[in-house]
Amino acid sequence: MIYGGIEAGGTKWVCAIGSGPDDVQETVTFPTTHPEETIARAADFFNGNGALAAVGIGSFGPIDVQRTSPTWGRITTTPKPGWAGTEIVAALSAALDLPIAFDTDVNAAALGEHRWGAAVGLETFCYITVGTGIGGGGMANGTLMHGLLHPELGHMRIPHDRARDPFDGVCPYHGDCFEGLASGDSIRARWGRPPEQITDEHPWLLEAEYLALGLVNVICTLSPQRIIIGGGVMNEPSLLALVRTRVQVLASGYFDAPELGEAIEDYIVRPALADRAGVLGALELARRALASPEDR
Amino acid sequence: MIYGGIEAGGTKWVCAIGSGPDDVQETVTFPTTHPEETIARAADFFNGNGALAAVGIGSFGPIDVQRTSPTWGRITTTPKPGWAGTEIVAALSAALDLPIAFDTDVNAAALGEHRWGAAVGLETFCYITVGTGIGGGGMANGTLMHGLLHPELGHMRIPHDRARDPFDGVCPYHGDCFEGLASGDSIRARWGRPPEQITDEHPWLLEAEYLALGLVNVICTLSPQRIIIGGGVMNEPSLLALVRTRVQVLASGYFDAPELGEAIEDYIVRPALADRAGVLGALELARRALASPEDR
Repeated sequence: MIYGGIEAGGTKWVCAIGSGPDDVQETVTFPTTHPEETIARAADFFNGNGALAAVGIGSFGPIDVQRTSPTWGRITTTPKPGWAGTEIVAALSAALDLPIAFDTDVNAAALGEHRWGAAVGLETFCYITVGTGIGGGGMANGTLMHGLLHPELGHMRIPHDRARDPFDGVCPYHGDCFEGLASGDSIRARWGRPPEQITDEHPWLLEAEYLALGLVNVICTLSPQRIIIGGGVMNEPSLLALVRTRVQVLASGYFDAPELGEAIEDYIVRPALADRAGVLGALELARRALASPEDR
Repeated sequence: MIYGGIEAGGTKWVCAIGSGPDDVQETVTFPTTHPEETIARAADFFNGNGALAAVGIGSFGPIDVQRTSPTWGRITTTPKPGWAGTEIVAALSAALDLPIAFDTDVNAAALGEHRWGAAVGLETFCYITVGTGIGGGGMANGTLMHGLLHPELGHMRIPHDRARDPFDGVCPYHGDCFEGLASGDSIRARWGRPPEQITDEHPWLLEAEYLALGLVNVICTLSPQRIIIGGGVMNEPSLLALVRTRVQVLASGYFDAPELGEAIEDYIVRPALADRAGVLGALELARRALASPEDR
Protein backbone atom coordinates (compact mmCIF):
# COMPACT_ATOMS: atom_id res chain seq x y z
CA MET A 1 0.00 0.00 0.00
CA ILE A 2 1.23 3.53 -0.66
CA TYR A 3 0.47 6.71 1.18
CA GLY A 4 0.77 10.45 0.90
CA GLY A 5 2.77 12.47 3.43
CA ILE A 6 2.95 16.21 4.00
CA GLU A 7 5.53 17.98 6.09
CA ALA A 8 3.54 21.20 6.39
CA GLY A 9 6.08 23.72 7.58
CA GLY A 10 5.69 27.42 8.11
CA THR A 11 8.23 28.16 5.35
CA LYS A 12 7.73 25.29 2.95
CA TRP A 13 5.65 22.19 2.43
CA VAL A 14 7.22 18.89 1.43
CA CYS A 15 4.87 16.27 -0.01
CA ALA A 16 5.79 12.68 -0.75
CA ILE A 17 4.16 9.55 -2.09
CA GLY A 18 5.43 6.16 -1.00
CA SER A 19 5.68 3.80 1.92
CA GLY A 20 9.05 4.45 3.56
CA PRO A 21 12.64 5.65 3.16
CA ASP A 22 13.43 3.09 0.47
CA ASP A 23 10.19 3.61 -1.37
CA VAL A 24 9.62 7.31 -1.95
CA GLN A 25 8.10 7.39 -5.40
CA GLU A 26 7.64 11.11 -5.88
CA THR A 27 8.17 14.30 -3.90
CA VAL A 28 7.41 17.95 -4.35
CA THR A 29 8.43 21.00 -2.33
CA PHE A 30 6.83 24.43 -2.51
CA PRO A 31 6.74 27.58 -0.37
CA THR A 32 4.05 28.13 2.26
CA THR A 33 2.00 31.01 0.83
CA HIS A 34 -1.71 31.59 1.48
CA PRO A 35 -3.58 28.65 3.01
CA GLU A 36 -5.92 28.07 0.03
CA GLU A 37 -3.11 28.15 -2.50
CA THR A 38 -0.78 25.98 -0.43
CA ILE A 39 -3.37 23.34 0.38
CA ALA A 40 -4.50 23.28 -3.26
CA ARG A 41 -0.96 22.58 -4.46
CA ALA A 42 -0.71 19.63 -2.09
CA ALA A 43 -4.11 18.33 -3.21
CA ASP A 44 -3.13 18.64 -6.88
CA PHE A 45 0.06 16.69 -6.26
CA PHE A 46 -1.76 13.81 -4.59
CA ASN A 47 -4.67 13.85 -7.02
CA GLY A 48 -2.27 13.12 -9.83
CA ASN A 49 -1.67 9.71 -8.23
CA GLY A 50 -4.66 7.44 -7.98
CA ALA A 51 -3.40 4.69 -5.70
CA LEU A 52 -3.07 6.41 -2.31
CA ALA A 53 -4.70 4.75 0.69
CA ALA A 54 -4.45 7.70 3.09
CA VAL A 55 -2.58 10.96 3.65
CA GLY A 56 -0.65 11.97 6.78
CA ILE A 57 0.09 15.57 7.71
CA GLY A 58 2.78 16.75 10.11
CA SER A 59 1.95 20.41 10.54
CA PHE A 60 3.48 23.54 12.01
CA GLY A 61 1.33 24.85 14.83
CA PRO A 62 -0.06 25.18 17.34
CA ILE A 63 -2.70 22.80 16.02
CA ASP A 64 -5.70 20.97 17.43
CA VAL A 65 -4.82 17.26 17.59
CA GLN A 66 -7.75 16.12 19.79
CA ARG A 67 -9.86 13.79 17.66
CA THR A 68 -12.92 14.52 19.78
CA SER A 69 -12.59 18.31 19.48
CA PRO A 70 -14.91 20.28 17.19
CA THR A 71 -11.84 22.12 15.90
CA TRP A 72 -9.72 18.99 15.28
CA GLY A 73 -7.52 19.35 12.21
CA ARG A 74 -7.05 23.10 12.46
CA ILE A 75 -4.11 25.39 13.02
CA THR A 76 -5.01 27.44 16.09
CA THR A 77 -3.13 30.48 17.40
CA THR A 78 -0.19 30.79 15.00
CA PRO A 79 1.16 34.30 14.47
CA LYS A 80 1.80 33.37 10.81
CA PRO A 81 -0.35 35.78 8.78
CA GLY A 82 -3.49 34.23 7.33
CA TRP A 83 -3.01 30.81 8.89
CA ALA A 84 -4.70 31.10 12.31
CA GLY A 85 -7.84 28.93 12.24
CA THR A 86 -6.98 27.24 8.93
CA GLU A 87 -8.86 23.95 8.60
CA ILE A 88 -6.11 21.93 6.95
CA VAL A 89 -7.71 18.53 7.38
CA ALA A 90 -11.16 19.60 6.25
CA ALA A 91 -9.78 21.31 3.15
CA LEU A 92 -7.65 18.34 2.14
CA SER A 93 -10.43 15.86 2.90
CA ALA A 94 -12.76 17.77 0.64
CA ALA A 95 -10.19 17.81 -2.16
CA LEU A 96 -8.95 14.22 -1.87
CA ASP A 97 -11.71 12.08 -0.36
CA LEU A 98 -9.11 10.04 1.55
CA PRO A 99 -8.54 9.30 5.25
CA ILE A 100 -6.31 12.03 6.71
CA ALA A 101 -4.03 11.66 9.73
CA PHE A 102 -2.90 14.84 11.45
CA ASP A 103 -0.24 15.62 14.03
CA THR A 104 2.46 18.17 14.73
CA ASP A 105 5.48 18.38 12.41
CA VAL A 106 7.72 17.32 15.29
CA ASN A 107 5.53 14.38 16.32
CA ALA A 108 5.58 13.25 12.68
CA ALA A 109 9.38 13.50 12.62
CA ALA A 110 9.54 11.63 15.93
CA LEU A 111 7.35 8.90 14.45
CA GLY A 112 9.57 8.65 11.38
CA GLU A 113 12.63 8.25 13.58
CA HIS A 114 10.77 5.68 15.68
CA ARG A 115 9.84 3.58 12.64
CA TRP A 116 13.08 3.84 10.67
CA GLY A 117 15.67 5.97 12.43
CA ALA A 118 17.30 6.85 15.73
CA ALA A 119 14.40 5.91 18.00
CA VAL A 120 13.63 2.36 16.84
CA GLY A 121 12.54 0.30 19.83
CA LEU A 122 12.34 3.21 22.27
CA GLU A 123 9.23 3.91 24.32
CA THR A 124 9.95 7.40 25.61
CA PHE A 125 12.04 9.87 23.62
CA CYS A 126 12.01 13.41 22.26
CA TYR A 127 12.52 14.88 18.83
CA ILE A 128 13.53 18.53 18.98
CA THR A 129 14.02 20.80 15.98
CA VAL A 130 16.05 23.98 16.16
CA GLY A 131 15.33 25.96 13.03
CA THR A 132 13.51 29.23 12.43
CA GLY A 133 11.71 28.39 15.67
CA ILE A 134 12.09 25.58 18.21
CA GLY A 135 9.62 22.73 18.49
CA GLY A 136 9.54 19.37 20.14
CA GLY A 137 7.53 16.20 20.16
CA GLY A 138 8.10 12.56 20.81
CA MET A 139 6.66 9.51 22.44
CA ALA A 140 5.85 8.77 26.06
CA ASN A 141 5.27 5.13 26.94
CA GLY A 142 5.12 4.19 23.26
CA THR A 143 2.50 6.74 22.19
CA LEU A 144 2.96 10.11 20.48
CA MET A 145 2.82 12.92 23.01
CA HIS A 146 -0.54 14.62 23.31
CA GLY A 147 -2.28 15.91 26.39
CA LEU A 148 -4.22 19.07 27.03
CA LEU A 149 -2.76 20.20 23.66
CA HIS A 150 0.64 19.03 22.43
CA PRO A 151 4.19 19.79 23.60
CA GLU A 152 5.38 23.34 23.01
CA LEU A 153 9.01 22.94 24.05
CA GLY A 154 10.00 26.20 22.41
CA HIS A 155 8.08 28.20 24.98
CA MET A 156 9.72 26.88 28.13
CA ARG A 157 11.37 29.51 30.29
CA ILE A 158 15.12 29.06 30.78
CA PRO A 159 17.72 31.11 32.65
CA HIS A 160 18.82 34.20 30.76
CA ASP A 161 21.95 35.89 32.05
CA ARG A 162 21.57 39.43 30.72
CA ALA A 163 25.11 40.31 31.72
CA ARG A 164 26.36 37.70 29.26
CA ASP A 165 23.58 38.18 26.71
CA PRO A 166 21.62 41.44 26.90
CA PHE A 167 19.51 40.44 23.89
CA ASP A 168 15.78 40.54 24.72
CA GLY A 169 14.71 37.51 22.70
CA VAL A 170 12.43 37.32 19.67
CA CYS A 171 9.32 35.45 20.81
CA PRO A 172 6.27 37.66 20.14
CA TYR A 173 4.50 36.07 23.12
CA HIS A 174 7.25 35.60 25.70
CA GLY A 175 10.36 37.50 24.62
CA ASP A 176 13.16 35.42 26.09
CA CYS A 177 11.64 31.96 26.25
CA PHE A 178 13.68 29.01 24.88
CA GLU A 179 12.71 29.78 21.28
CA GLY A 180 13.07 33.50 21.89
CA LEU A 181 16.71 32.99 22.90
CA ALA A 182 17.89 29.99 20.90
CA SER A 183 15.97 29.74 17.61
CA GLY A 184 17.51 30.51 14.25
CA ASP A 185 15.47 33.73 14.19
CA SER A 186 16.98 34.76 17.52
CA ILE A 187 20.50 34.09 16.26
CA ARG A 188 19.84 36.20 13.17
CA ALA A 189 18.37 39.06 15.21
CA ARG A 190 21.04 38.99 17.91
CA TRP A 191 24.09 38.87 15.65
CA GLY A 192 22.70 40.56 12.52
CA ARG A 193 23.67 37.56 10.40
CA PRO A 194 22.05 34.22 9.61
CA PRO A 195 23.40 31.21 11.51
CA GLU A 196 25.24 29.87 8.45
CA GLN A 197 27.36 33.04 8.31
CA ILE A 198 28.46 32.88 11.94
CA THR A 199 31.93 31.40 12.23
CA ASP A 200 33.26 32.87 15.49
CA GLU A 201 33.10 30.80 18.63
CA HIS A 202 31.24 33.00 21.11
CA PRO A 203 27.79 32.89 19.46
CA TRP A 204 27.93 29.10 19.31
CA LEU A 205 28.99 28.78 22.94
CA LEU A 206 25.98 30.88 23.90
CA GLU A 207 23.69 28.87 21.64
CA ALA A 208 24.98 25.60 23.13
CA GLU A 209 24.30 26.92 26.63
CA TYR A 210 20.67 27.73 25.83
CA LEU A 211 20.09 24.45 24.01
CA ALA A 212 21.61 22.52 26.91
CA LEU A 213 19.36 24.34 29.40
CA GLY A 214 16.33 23.41 27.32
CA LEU A 215 17.45 19.80 26.99
CA VAL A 216 18.11 19.49 30.72
CA ASN A 217 14.56 20.68 31.39
CA VAL A 218 13.19 18.06 29.00
CA ILE A 219 15.31 15.41 30.74
CA CYS A 220 14.00 16.50 34.16
CA THR A 221 10.38 16.43 33.00
CA LEU A 222 10.03 13.47 30.64
CA SER A 223 13.21 11.45 31.31
CA PRO A 224 13.51 10.47 27.64
CA GLN A 225 15.60 7.44 26.70
CA ARG A 226 17.13 9.50 23.91
CA ILE A 227 16.91 13.03 22.51
CA ILE A 228 17.04 13.51 18.74
CA ILE A 229 17.89 17.05 17.75
CA GLY A 230 17.39 18.28 14.21
CA GLY A 231 16.74 21.52 12.37
CA GLY A 232 18.87 23.88 10.34
CA VAL A 233 20.69 25.51 13.25
CA MET A 234 22.19 22.13 14.14
CA ASN A 235 24.01 22.15 10.79
CA GLU A 236 26.75 24.21 12.48
CA PRO A 237 29.45 21.52 12.75
CA SER A 238 30.69 22.47 16.23
CA LEU A 239 27.30 22.77 17.90
CA LEU A 240 26.28 19.21 18.78
CA ALA A 241 29.49 18.51 20.70
CA LEU A 242 29.18 21.80 22.58
CA VAL A 243 25.59 20.98 23.56
CA ARG A 244 26.52 17.51 24.78
CA THR A 245 29.30 18.91 26.94
CA ARG A 246 27.09 21.57 28.48
CA VAL A 247 24.35 19.02 29.25
CA GLN A 248 26.95 16.91 31.07
CA VAL A 249 28.09 19.94 33.05
CA LEU A 250 24.56 21.09 33.90
CA ALA A 251 23.54 17.58 35.00
CA SER A 252 26.38 17.78 37.53
CA GLY A 253 26.43 14.08 38.30
CA TYR A 254 22.91 14.12 39.70
CA PHE A 255 21.47 11.58 37.30
CA ASP A 256 22.65 8.01 37.81
CA ALA A 257 22.90 7.19 34.10
CA PRO A 258 25.89 6.86 31.79
CA GLU A 259 23.73 8.43 29.07
CA LEU A 260 24.20 11.77 30.83
CA GLY A 261 27.90 11.15 31.31
CA GLU A 262 30.37 9.19 29.22
CA ALA A 263 27.69 7.76 26.91
CA ILE A 264 26.16 11.08 25.96
CA GLU A 265 27.09 10.64 22.29
CA ASP A 266 24.46 7.91 22.08
CA TYR A 267 21.96 9.97 24.05
CA ILE A 268 21.80 13.32 22.25
CA VAL A 269 21.89 12.48 18.56
CA ARG A 270 21.07 13.84 15.12
CA PRO A 271 18.07 12.44 13.22
CA ALA A 272 19.02 9.28 11.33
CA LEU A 273 16.60 10.29 8.57
CA ALA A 274 18.17 13.78 8.40
CA ASP A 275 15.78 16.29 6.85
CA ARG A 276 13.42 13.57 5.62
CA ALA A 277 12.23 12.61 9.14
CA GLY A 278 9.14 14.83 8.97
CA VAL A 279 7.78 13.80 5.59
CA LEU A 280 8.61 10.12 6.13
CA GLY A 281 6.91 10.31 9.51
CA ALA A 282 3.87 11.78 7.76
CA LEU A 283 3.75 8.66 5.55
CA GLU A 284 3.83 6.55 8.71
CA LEU A 285 1.05 8.67 10.25
CA ALA A 286 -1.03 7.79 7.19
CA ARG A 287 -0.23 4.08 7.45
CA ARG A 288 -1.13 4.04 11.13
CA ALA A 289 -4.46 5.72 10.45
CA LEU A 290 -5.51 2.56 8.62
CA ALA A 291 -3.63 -0.02 10.70
CA SER A 292 -5.09 -2.18 13.43
CA PRO A 293 -3.85 -1.21 16.93
CA GLU A 294 -1.29 -4.02 17.09
CA ASP A 295 0.24 -2.90 13.77
CA ARG A 296 0.87 0.67 14.88
CA MET B 1 -7.92 -8.44 48.96
CA ILE B 2 -5.85 -6.14 51.17
CA TYR B 3 -2.44 -4.67 50.54
CA GLY B 4 0.38 -2.91 52.28
CA GLY B 5 1.49 0.56 51.20
CA ILE B 6 4.56 2.57 52.16
CA GLU B 7 5.07 6.24 51.51
CA ALA B 8 8.84 6.13 52.02
CA GLY B 9 9.79 9.77 52.45
CA GLY B 10 13.13 11.26 53.30
CA THR B 11 11.77 12.59 56.61
CA LYS B 12 9.18 10.01 57.59
CA TRP B 13 7.66 6.76 56.41
CA VAL B 14 3.91 6.23 56.41
CA CYS B 15 2.73 2.64 56.20
CA ALA B 16 -0.86 1.53 55.70
CA ILE B 17 -2.83 -1.68 55.36
CA GLY B 18 -6.05 -1.70 53.38
CA SER B 19 -7.48 -1.42 49.91
CA GLY B 20 -8.41 2.25 49.42
CA PRO B 21 -9.44 5.55 51.01
CA ASP B 22 -12.53 4.05 52.65
CA ASP B 23 -10.76 0.92 53.78
CA VAL B 24 -7.56 1.86 55.59
CA GLN B 25 -7.40 -0.68 58.38
CA GLU B 26 -4.22 0.38 60.11
CA THR B 27 -1.49 2.96 59.66
CA VAL B 28 1.81 3.77 61.29
CA THR B 29 4.18 6.70 60.85
CA PHE B 30 7.80 6.83 61.97
CA PRO B 31 10.87 8.93 61.22
CA THR B 32 13.32 7.99 58.48
CA THR B 33 16.47 7.03 60.40
CA HIS B 34 19.09 4.51 59.22
CA PRO B 35 18.01 2.29 56.32
CA GLU B 36 18.16 -1.00 58.27
CA GLU B 37 16.17 0.35 61.21
CA THR B 38 13.60 2.10 59.02
CA ILE B 39 12.99 -0.86 56.73
CA ALA B 40 12.79 -3.21 59.72
CA ARG B 41 10.07 -1.07 61.32
CA ALA B 42 8.02 -1.25 58.13
CA ALA B 43 8.54 -5.02 57.89
CA ASP B 44 7.49 -5.49 61.52
CA PHE B 45 4.32 -3.51 60.92
CA PHE B 46 3.31 -5.61 57.93
CA ASN B 47 4.39 -8.90 59.50
CA GLY B 48 1.90 -8.33 62.28
CA ASN B 49 -0.85 -8.73 59.68
CA GLY B 50 -1.06 -12.04 57.94
CA ALA B 51 -3.50 -11.35 55.14
CA LEU B 52 -1.55 -9.03 52.81
CA ALA B 53 -1.38 -9.93 49.12
CA ALA B 54 1.39 -7.53 48.13
CA VAL B 55 3.18 -4.36 49.27
CA GLY B 56 3.63 -1.17 47.27
CA ILE B 57 6.37 1.38 47.95
CA GLY B 58 6.40 4.99 46.83
CA SER B 59 9.94 6.07 47.64
CA PHE B 60 11.98 9.24 47.82
CA GLY B 61 14.78 9.14 45.32
CA PRO B 62 16.35 9.11 42.90
CA ILE B 63 15.53 5.41 42.61
CA ASP B 64 15.94 2.69 40.01
CA VAL B 65 12.49 1.85 38.64
CA GLN B 66 13.59 -0.19 35.60
CA ARG B 67 12.38 -3.73 36.18
CA THR B 68 15.05 -5.11 33.87
CA SER B 69 17.90 -3.31 35.64
CA PRO B 70 20.28 -5.21 37.95
CA THR B 71 19.85 -2.39 40.46
CA TRP B 72 16.03 -2.26 40.32
CA GLY B 73 14.50 -1.46 43.68
CA ARG B 74 17.37 0.66 44.97
CA ILE B 75 17.79 4.25 45.97
CA THR B 76 20.60 5.57 43.79
CA THR B 77 22.35 8.95 44.18
CA THR B 78 20.52 10.57 47.09
CA PRO B 79 22.54 12.98 49.22
CA LYS B 80 20.64 11.72 52.29
CA PRO B 81 23.35 10.24 54.55
CA GLY B 82 23.46 6.45 54.56
CA TRP B 83 20.72 5.94 51.98
CA ALA B 84 22.61 5.99 48.64
CA GLY B 85 22.51 2.47 47.20
CA THR B 86 19.97 1.17 49.73
CA GLU B 87 18.21 -1.94 48.36
CA ILE B 88 14.74 -1.19 49.69
CA VAL B 89 12.90 -3.83 47.67
CA ALA B 90 15.40 -6.60 48.33
CA ALA B 91 15.39 -5.91 52.07
CA LEU B 92 11.60 -5.87 52.32
CA SER B 93 11.24 -8.91 50.10
CA ALA B 94 13.57 -10.85 52.35
CA ALA B 95 11.61 -9.82 55.44
CA LEU B 96 8.08 -10.24 54.06
CA ASP B 97 8.13 -12.86 51.30
CA LEU B 98 5.48 -10.89 49.38
CA PRO B 99 5.37 -9.34 45.90
CA ILE B 100 6.71 -5.80 46.12
CA ALA B 101 5.82 -2.92 43.76
CA PHE B 102 8.18 0.03 43.66
CA ASP B 103 7.94 3.53 42.21
CA THR B 104 8.72 7.11 43.14
CA ASP B 105 6.77 8.78 45.96
CA VAL B 106 5.32 11.24 43.45
CA ASN B 107 4.30 8.57 40.94
CA ALA B 108 2.59 6.72 43.79
CA ALA B 109 0.74 9.91 44.76
CA ALA B 110 -0.17 10.47 41.11
CA LEU B 111 -1.54 6.94 40.93
CA GLY B 112 -3.59 7.47 44.09
CA GLU B 113 -5.09 10.62 42.61
CA HIS B 114 -5.75 8.78 39.34
CA ARG B 115 -7.61 5.97 41.09
CA TRP B 116 -9.57 7.96 43.66
CA GLY B 117 -8.83 11.68 43.45
CA ALA B 118 -8.28 14.66 41.18
CA ALA B 119 -7.01 12.73 38.13
CA VAL B 120 -9.73 10.12 37.67
CA GLY B 121 -10.20 9.47 33.96
CA LEU B 122 -7.18 11.52 32.82
CA GLU B 123 -4.51 10.06 30.56
CA THR B 124 -1.76 12.66 30.89
CA PHE B 125 -1.29 14.68 34.06
CA CYS B 126 1.31 15.68 36.63
CA TYR B 127 1.51 15.43 40.38
CA ILE B 128 3.99 17.89 41.86
CA THR B 129 4.93 18.14 45.52
CA VAL B 130 6.47 21.26 47.01
CA GLY B 131 7.80 20.36 50.42
CA THR B 132 11.31 20.06 51.82
CA GLY B 133 12.28 19.47 48.18
CA ILE B 134 10.34 19.51 44.92
CA GLY B 135 9.40 16.38 43.04
CA GLY B 136 7.05 15.46 40.27
CA GLY B 137 5.55 12.44 38.61
CA GLY B 138 2.40 11.56 36.77
CA MET B 139 1.04 9.69 33.83
CA ALA B 140 1.65 10.08 30.12
CA ASN B 141 -0.82 8.37 27.83
CA GLY B 142 -2.30 6.42 30.75
CA THR B 143 0.96 4.99 32.09
CA LEU B 144 3.09 6.17 35.02
CA MET B 145 6.00 8.25 33.77
CA HIS B 146 9.26 6.37 33.42
CA GLY B 147 11.91 6.68 30.75
CA LEU B 148 15.67 6.71 30.99
CA LEU B 149 15.09 7.13 34.75
CA HIS B 150 12.03 8.92 36.15
CA PRO B 151 11.01 12.58 36.15
CA GLU B 152 13.13 14.89 38.29
CA LEU B 153 11.10 18.06 38.00
CA GLY B 154 12.86 19.68 40.93
CA HIS B 155 16.08 19.95 38.96
CA MET B 156 14.79 21.92 35.97
CA ARG B 157 16.52 25.23 35.38
CA ILE B 158 14.25 28.28 35.59
CA PRO B 159 14.94 32.01 35.24
CA HIS B 160 16.47 33.52 38.36
CA ASP B 161 16.44 37.32 38.53
CA ARG B 162 19.24 38.04 40.96
CA ALA B 163 18.28 41.71 41.17
CA ARG B 164 14.94 40.65 42.67
CA ASP B 165 16.28 37.61 44.53
CA PRO B 166 20.04 37.51 45.17
CA PHE B 167 19.71 34.20 47.05
CA ASP B 168 21.98 31.52 45.54
CA GLY B 169 19.62 28.56 45.99
CA VAL B 170 20.04 25.46 48.14
CA CYS B 171 20.45 22.55 45.73
CA PRO B 172 23.74 20.77 46.51
CA TYR B 173 24.03 19.77 42.84
CA HIS B 174 22.71 22.78 40.93
CA GLY B 175 22.36 25.73 43.31
CA ASP B 176 19.50 27.68 41.80
CA CYS B 177 17.51 24.98 40.00
CA PHE B 178 13.72 24.84 40.57
CA GLU B 179 14.09 23.00 43.88
CA GLY B 180 17.06 25.16 44.82
CA LEU B 181 14.93 28.30 44.51
CA ALA B 182 11.40 27.18 45.42
CA SER B 183 11.51 24.27 47.87
CA GLY B 184 10.61 24.57 51.52
CA ASP B 185 14.31 24.30 52.36
CA SER B 186 15.07 27.25 50.08
CA ILE B 187 12.36 29.36 51.74
CA ARG B 188 13.76 28.54 55.16
CA ALA B 189 17.32 29.37 54.09
CA ARG B 190 16.42 32.57 52.21
CA TRP B 191 14.20 34.12 54.85
CA GLY B 192 15.65 32.55 58.01
CA ARG B 193 12.23 31.22 59.00
CA PRO B 194 10.21 28.13 58.08
CA PRO B 195 7.42 28.65 55.53
CA GLU B 196 4.69 28.40 58.15
CA GLN B 197 6.11 31.45 59.95
CA ILE B 198 6.16 33.67 56.85
CA THR B 199 3.15 35.96 56.80
CA ASP B 200 4.33 38.92 54.72
CA GLU B 201 3.40 39.08 51.06
CA HIS B 202 6.74 39.46 49.27
CA PRO B 203 8.15 35.98 49.96
CA TRP B 204 4.97 34.37 48.69
CA LEU B 205 4.90 36.49 45.53
CA LEU B 206 8.44 35.32 44.81
CA GLU B 207 7.54 31.70 45.59
CA ALA B 208 4.52 31.90 43.28
CA GLU B 209 6.70 33.26 40.49
CA TYR B 210 9.13 30.34 40.73
CA LEU B 211 6.38 27.74 41.00
CA ALA B 212 4.61 29.24 37.98
CA LEU B 213 7.84 29.15 35.95
CA GLY B 214 8.27 25.48 36.81
CA LEU B 215 4.64 24.70 35.97
CA VAL B 216 4.84 26.51 32.64
CA ASN B 217 7.86 24.40 31.74
CA VAL B 218 5.94 21.23 32.58
CA ILE B 219 3.02 22.46 30.47
CA CYS B 220 5.35 23.18 27.53
CA THR B 221 6.97 19.74 27.77
CA LEU B 222 4.24 17.28 28.70
CA SER B 223 1.04 19.26 27.99
CA PRO B 224 -0.72 17.68 30.98
CA GLN B 225 -4.51 17.70 31.14
CA ARG B 226 -4.26 18.79 34.77
CA ILE B 227 -1.57 19.60 37.33
CA ILE B 228 -2.05 18.49 40.92
CA ILE B 229 0.17 20.34 43.35
CA GLY B 230 0.68 19.13 46.88
CA GLY B 231 3.28 19.32 49.62
CA GLY B 232 3.61 21.30 52.82
CA VAL B 233 4.62 24.61 51.20
CA MET B 234 1.24 24.69 49.44
CA ASN B 235 -0.44 24.92 52.86
CA GLU B 236 0.13 28.69 52.73
CA PRO B 237 -3.45 29.80 52.03
CA SER B 238 -2.61 32.56 49.55
CA LEU B 239 -0.18 30.56 47.42
CA LEU B 240 -2.33 28.52 45.05
CA ALA B 241 -4.23 31.56 43.75
CA LEU B 242 -0.97 33.45 43.24
CA VAL B 243 0.50 30.54 41.28
CA ARG B 244 -2.56 30.25 39.06
CA THR B 245 -2.46 33.95 38.26
CA ARG B 246 1.23 33.88 37.39
CA VAL B 247 0.80 30.85 35.14
CA GLN B 248 -1.93 32.74 33.26
CA VAL B 249 0.35 35.75 32.88
CA LEU B 250 3.37 33.69 31.78
CA ALA B 251 1.29 31.73 29.24
CA SER B 252 0.47 35.11 27.66
CA GLY B 253 -2.41 33.83 25.57
CA TYR B 254 -0.18 31.52 23.56
CA PHE B 255 -2.01 28.32 24.45
CA ASP B 256 -5.45 27.92 22.87
CA ALA B 257 -7.04 26.36 25.96
CA PRO B 258 -9.43 27.78 28.57
CA GLU B 259 -7.56 25.66 31.14
CA LEU B 260 -4.72 28.17 30.94
CA GLY B 261 -7.11 31.11 31.06
CA GLU B 262 -10.47 31.48 32.75
CA ALA B 263 -10.71 27.78 33.70
CA ILE B 264 -7.36 27.60 35.50
CA GLU B 265 -9.02 26.78 38.83
CA ASP B 266 -9.89 23.37 37.40
CA TYR B 267 -6.43 22.98 35.87
CA ILE B 268 -4.02 23.62 38.72
CA VAL B 269 -5.53 21.94 41.74
CA ARG B 270 -4.72 20.53 45.18
CA PRO B 271 -4.66 16.75 45.69
CA ALA B 272 -8.16 15.43 46.41
CA LEU B 273 -6.61 12.84 48.76
CA ALA B 274 -4.65 15.58 50.58
CA ASP B 275 -1.64 14.14 52.41
CA ARG B 276 -2.86 10.56 51.97
CA ALA B 277 -2.26 10.52 48.19
CA GLY B 278 1.17 8.90 48.51
CA VAL B 279 0.34 6.05 50.86
CA LEU B 280 -2.99 5.32 49.17
CA GLY B 281 -1.21 5.32 45.83
CA ALA B 282 1.26 2.81 47.28
CA LEU B 283 -1.70 0.51 48.06
CA GLU B 284 -2.80 0.87 44.44
CA LEU B 285 0.76 0.11 43.26
CA ALA B 286 0.50 -3.14 45.22
CA ARG B 287 -2.91 -4.01 43.77
CA ARG B 288 -1.66 -3.35 40.24
CA ALA B 289 1.35 -5.59 40.78
CA LEU B 290 -1.05 -8.52 40.99
CA ALA B 291 -3.72 -7.33 38.55
CA SER B 292 -4.10 -8.44 34.95
CA PRO B 293 -3.24 -5.68 32.45
CA GLU B 294 -6.89 -4.78 31.80
CA ASP B 295 -7.51 -4.28 35.53
CA ARG B 296 -4.70 -1.77 36.01
